[in-house]
Amino acid sequence: MQTIGNEYWWERDDLRYIDNQLYLGATNLNKLTASHGTPLYVYNASRAKQNLQRLHCALESKSINHRLFYAMKSNRYAPLLTYLKLTGLCGIDACSPGELLLALECGFKEEDISYTATAMSDGDCDILAKHPGIVLNLDSLTAIRKIGERCPGRNIGLRINPALGVGYETNELLRYSGSKTTKFGIYKADFDEAVRLSKKYGLNITGIHLHTGCGYLTPQLPVWRSILEESRWFVDKLPRLEYLNVGGGLGIPLAQTDNGLDLNTWNNVIVETLSGAAHDIWVEPGDYIVKDTGVLLLQVTMVERKQNTLFIGVNGGFNIHIEPAFYHLPLHPVPVKVYSDHPADVVTIAGNINEALDIFYDNIIMPLPEEGDYLAFLNAGGYGASMSSNHCMRGIFKEMLILQ
Amino acid sequence: MQTIGNEYWWERDDLRYIDNQLYLGATNLNKLTASHGTPLYVYNASRAKQNLQRLHCALESKSINHRLFYAMKSNRYAPLLTYLKLTGLCGIDACSPGELLLALECGFKEEDISYTATAMSDGDCDILAKHPGIVLNLDSLTAIRKIGERCPGRNIGLRINPALGVGYETNELLRYSGSKTTKFGIYKADFDEAVRLSKKYGLNITGIHLHTGCGYLTPQLPVWRSILEESRWFVDKLPRLEYLNVGGGLGIPLAQTDNGLDLNTWNNVIVETLSGAAHDIWVEPGDYIVKDTGVLLLQVTMVERKQNTLFIGVNGGFNIHIEPAFYHLPLHPVPVKVYSDHPADVVTIAGNINEALDIFYDNIIMPLPEEGDYLAFLNAGGYGASMSSNHCMRGIFKEMLILQ
Repeated sequence: MQTIGNEYWWERDDLRYIDNQLYLGATNLNKLTASHGTPLYVYNASRAKQNLQRLHCALESKSINHRLFYAMKSNRYAPLLTYLKLTGLCGIDACSPGELLLALECGFKEEDISYTATAMSDGDCDILAKHPGIVLNLDSLTAIRKIGERCPGRNIGLRINPALGVGYETNELLRYSGSKTTKFGIYKADFDEAVRLSKKYGLNITGIHLHTGCGYLTPQLPVWRSILEESRWFVDKLPRLEYLNVGGGLGIPLAQTDNGLDLNTWNNVIVETLSGAAHDIWVEPGDYIVKDTGVLLLQVTMVERKQNTLFIGVNGGFNIHIEPAFYHLPLHPVPVKVYSDHPADVVTIAGNINEALDIFYDNIIMPLPEEGDYLAFLNAGGYGASMSSNHCMRGIFKEMLILQ
Repeated sequence: MQTIGNEYWWERDDLRYIDNQLYLGATNLNKLTASHGTPLYVYNASRAKQNLQRLHCALESKSINHRLFYAMKSNRYAPLLTYLKLTGLCGIDACSPGELLLALECGFKEEDISYTATAMSDGDCDILAKHPGIVLNLDSLTAIRKIGERCPGRNIGLRINPALGVGYETNELLRYSGSKTTKFGIYKADFDEAVRLSKKYGLNITGIHLHTGCGYLTPQLPVWRSILEESRWFVDKLPRLEYLNVGGGLGIPLAQTDNGLDLNTWNNVIVETLSGAAHDIWVEPGDYIVKDTGVLLLQVTMVERKQNTLFIGVNGGFNIHIEPAFYHLPLHPVPVKVYSDHPADVVTIAGNINEALDIFYDNIIMPLPEEGDYLAFLNAGGYGASMSSNHCMRGIFKEMLILQ
């Protein structure tokens, strides 16, 4: 008889132990390590679809007219992009000409793409001018002028800065906006000038875009509410608005103590702050769609105590997933095979890069692996591969999309 | 008549303004931006040679038998590697099989290469076994066993951990060793076991290696002295030692308030702590050789005040040089052409990535550039290109070696 796990906080229908081996969808990750080698990122396509559907449902349940644009900077694995296009559930949020072209190359159409960037060069704008069908959100007076000179008469959105931000509760690194002036968007003081400048070039403002934050969960929703309330000041100045893009930033639980984002509170905030608006609501989630679809598989290369610390060495470093080292976001490690005779112990998981900060997890209680075992790092589907570098020439890994 | 600059703290013979245009060696960087485009890294080969020569002189002046091994992880631009080989002034410090193979591909021989890595996989060790001429420094009991099984009788070095570290004065991120147990090297408590294990496999310990820190300058030399003193405990246990590798980590001034590392104090520390030793001293500098050889050239895409901050947007992001955003190390920006009518102002230089931390320099007084101008970011020759990523698909840049 199969033993199907429901023991751990992170287990779910498509990510759980069956007979002590870890499955993502129908794929046995223990067997996969043997056939494909590591480092290996594996993404479960169906989970991404579920995540999109859940967001759609939350918005539909409140009769909110909306569109979803997947923020491809979180994960641009080409097969995943094509899969997402085929679901019909989302467009693309692109932030560079390279991303725009890749999205097109993977099957998205210009009308599927919302483009929001910062510090746009003339070269960037020349490329954008060749794609009249994409939705452009311009985040500075400079960008309005550059696009105005190239594409008079074009529809545009304005990225505004509500001077408020919401993010990981204790993480200053990921603040898009807030009390410190950020480079993003147009502040209130410049908004009238932005509208005037748009008119000067015949640009037709059809949307407002706001980056609200990153990784927010239910406890941060009051700040998110304030941001949406603040956005009304801008929205009300543009009576013929077609969309308000409320950005992405929806978070997922990364540790046992996190509670998931309550979408029934989230959608209520939208209804309560933006009620009566004629425009659509656009959302551009990245991590919320892909982060929990993916695991990073690495092999244990060393199990050795040094002084008071039991180090588990693995065959990958912070350069292939930067979030633990630089953003202080956890990548929860679990064994791909559970052995009944492996006792739990407190370990520190260390990568193979010659830098002190190359630690995947500092102090975690887990079944003590042996050399040669494989570990799966959970919630590795966002900002892992897409931000990887070849530092120390340790940048080689594979990616794989699971379709069932 | 030419006006040759000596106005700024960073100007030197091979990096200065001539007739208000910035030169690196004999290359006019203002003209280079026009002919090659940006983002562009430019490295002055002669400066790297000077840096090597200066270190050699400091060691020779005290009659210290020594070898220098350039830490290629700081900059692995292939033409630079070949140039360094041709100077005859250094070997290579490699930290991964990829680096080892690239060094060989660029002209170094096995006997030029010192290899020091962490969390070595079986696959890594299989490759190392095919290169019997390189010097291997093993940093764990696990590594001794793995190499012992593959290469009985081989000469090895042991990487030890002196439980002390020295680094950028205020930067915890770059600590290789110190009071917190790190993953690197063999601690005192395990040293006898390491020697016993080496003997078991017939491995002949000919060297001791210690990573001492990163970016240290003269004020940190007392700690460096303690580290070398501490290393004596290990060295004295191995009477037939051929080398003591004291690591790299020698820093350079990154800001006007920094003073350069005083090599006459540095070499005295070596003499005073290791006097009477029969072994050679090996040093493996990275940043010290290449950091000040290089500039990163970027174009200004935006000059726009937002609230209280005057933002200068540029056509590159933190993904092509990670040090300001993640290591809090300054990349000093200067114009490649000085215009007499550009007043000084306080600016913040922002990259083109959609992340709040994508700031090259927060609050600096400099001649206010105009859109389309080019900036040179100084001391960009180390850990820039080598750590770059394609985040947001903004990872494209060029590199160039100046030979005169």
